[in-house]
Amino acid sequence: MILHMNLPQNGYDIILERGSLKRAGELLNLNRRVLIVTDTGVPALYAQTLAAQCANPVIETVPTGEGSKSFAVLEQLCRVMMEHHFTRSDCVVAVGGGVVGDLAGFTAASYMRGVDFYNCPTTVLSQVDSSIGGKVAINLDHVKNIVGAFYQPKRVLIDPDVLSTLPARQISNGLAEAVKMSLTSDAELFAIFEDRNAIERIDTVIERALRIKKAVVEEDEKEAGLRRILNFGHTLGHGVEAQNDRNHLYHGECVALGMLPMCAEEVRARLLPVLESLALPTRIEDEMELVLDAASHDKKCKGQSISVVYVPRVGEFEIRTLPIEAWKHEIRNTVIDSGKEST
Amino acid sequence: MILHMNLPQNGYDIILERGSLKRAGELLNLNRRVLIVTDTGVPALYAQTLAAQCANPVIETVPTGEGSKSFAVLEQLCRVMMEHHFTRSDCVVAVGGGVVGDLAGFTAASYMRGVDFYNCPTTVLSQVDSSIGGKVAINLDHVKNIVGAFYQPKRVLIDPDVLSTLPARQISNGLAEAVKMSLTSDAELFAIFEDRNAIERIDTVIERALRIKKAVVEEDEKEAGLRRILNFGHTLGHGVEAQNDRNHLYHGECVALGMLPMCAEEVRARLLPVLESLALPTRIEDEMELVLDAASHDKKCKGQSISVVYVPRVGEFEIRTLPIEAWKHEIRNTVIDSGKEST
Repeated sequence: MILHMNLPQNGYDIILERGSLKRAGELLNLNRRVLIVTDTGVPALYAQTLAAQCANPVIETVPTGEGSKSFAVLEQLCRVMMEHHFTRSDCVVAVGGGVVGDLAGFTAASYMRGVDFYNCPTTVLSQVDSSIGGKVAINLDHVKNIVGAFYQPKRVLIDPDVLSTLPARQISNGLAEAVKMSLTSDAELFAIFEDRNAIERIDTVIERALRIKKAVVEEDEKEAGLRRILNFGHTLGHGVEAQNDRNHLYHGECVALGMLPMCAEEVRARLLPVLESLALPTRIEDEMELVLDAASHDKKCKGQSISVVYVPRVGEFEIRTLPIEAWKHEIRNTVIDSGKEST
Repeated sequence: MILHMNLPQNGYDIILERGSLKRAGELLNLNRRVLIVTDTGVPALYAQTLAAQCANPVIETVPTGEGSKSFAVLEQLCRVMMEHHFTRSDCVVAVGGGVVGDLAGFTAASYMRGVDFYNCPTTVLSQVDSSIGGKVAINLDHVKNIVGAFYQPKRVLIDPDVLSTLPARQISNGLAEAVKMSLTSDAELFAIFEDRNAIERIDTVIERALRIKKAVVEEDEKEAGLRRILNFGHTLGHGVEAQNDRNHLYHGECVALGMLPMCAEEVRARLLPVLESLALPTRIEDEMELVLDAASHDKKCKGQSISVVYVPRVGEFEIRTLPIEAWKHEIRNTVIDSGKEST
């Protein structure tokens, strides 16, 4: 199936198809110099499968994890391209999850002021979310995505076959973002989660999540308005993530925690069992005041007020702007009743 | 005078006006956090004049010279913005020549995926050329402008008053680019140079050069075609520049040398005295074969052929694509008769 991202400039196709990685040579223009960026957490076979279809491939395997989204690694990738005489007519392909996509995408955006970029996401998280939308970036001093670009890929190749090698926790991590999108925008997708069918119906989940993200990005490519709904669960989630050195939660797990207090009580009562069925966390284990402080340093804060996305009914959303202290107060007073006793 | 750069997206005004730096607070939106990037070669007074008109200024003074167009300095500028809590609503202003404009512009393009950028060029070279057009970049391992973006300023403020502090050699360096533009596109501007009036009529020279560059950029924002005429003299010029560690020529001086062999004989006979009147060099002092080798590694080479701009008559140009060896042969055989004896 092909979804087309309609943008005023630089629209592109998203190809969702099992086995597409093995057919990349037909679907992408690889008859040139190709920098393939992957990481040590991705089975090497995937980058090799792609390389075998390129005229002139160079594989760069960066260390897995956010640490690779750095100026040092960006510089290194640009140097590799330079040493291999890449020109403006050559290209970069990401084979990996969100870290690889962000890093490779910003490299492609910057080398010679922009070369073609293809994204072949290999995780649920990147297949349902980060591989489309054109936001690429690196981190600086523990601040995520502070340096980057809006840069659209030429094409995105989503092959659900590659998910077969993912550990269950990584799958749930990605599904958390799909749950997020269902809550604000797609009650039928949420029903798949309630029916405990998300893994069996992963192709459908990916497709529906992509359709939501595509519609949002088409309406608001550069985050002026609607795109904020994609941040549902992310304000508090980023607060949890900022404590991540200690608790090692994945991004989707933090989003799961961030969504719970931002729903109406009735929605929360339905969300809780969904998260539990995916083995996603439902209780913030960190010191709540530290999390709230970190969250209120988020990009979404302007001065003393904060804008957050709130879900009053499944499939609907509101943008609420309120004083930071009022928001913190509301979160502190939200009872997350998981049916288990707190320790 | 206001020239408007008409682009499909992100058009902007170029304000050419004596005394405008002192009125920047009226002409730019400085009522926010403002990172002012300048360098040690620019009189500190200019950045201070601007800072005095900002609500919340931070001045960063980088070392003068191409060395500051590096990943290390880019990272440092982003860190400064982060530490001063710059948001997407804040801005960056360049106060300096081409190095400062390129560096500050790429910083603005990348921080939070893009904040507003203003350019206040303080050299002839940047006033007539590099401050408009939206090409920003840093260098990597001695390769110039290999990493960057197409990123348009919100406004460009050109104040010829600031040129009063420039040494004569720097003025000639900038005028070389205006001579270049006159040769391909504006015989009347070339006449000003032939009449030895360029310095007295500097405001007119700047305006006419800006009009040429503006027209070229409007037609070809991303260097797909016409914009190549701006590279007149630059292919061989970059070859000379690559030997620059030794001979310390300025960019405009290298362009002067690069233009001479790329003109018809009759044009060259008129260009030579113009360059001499500006004290620009007219003879390549480096080993010609090294220069030609360096030049043929230029971006404009594809495979075994090279595209160069040639001026058959003053105010006209041709794009010639020829085998690299044929081009080298032509340059070797061009006699530059400066009326002085070669040593």
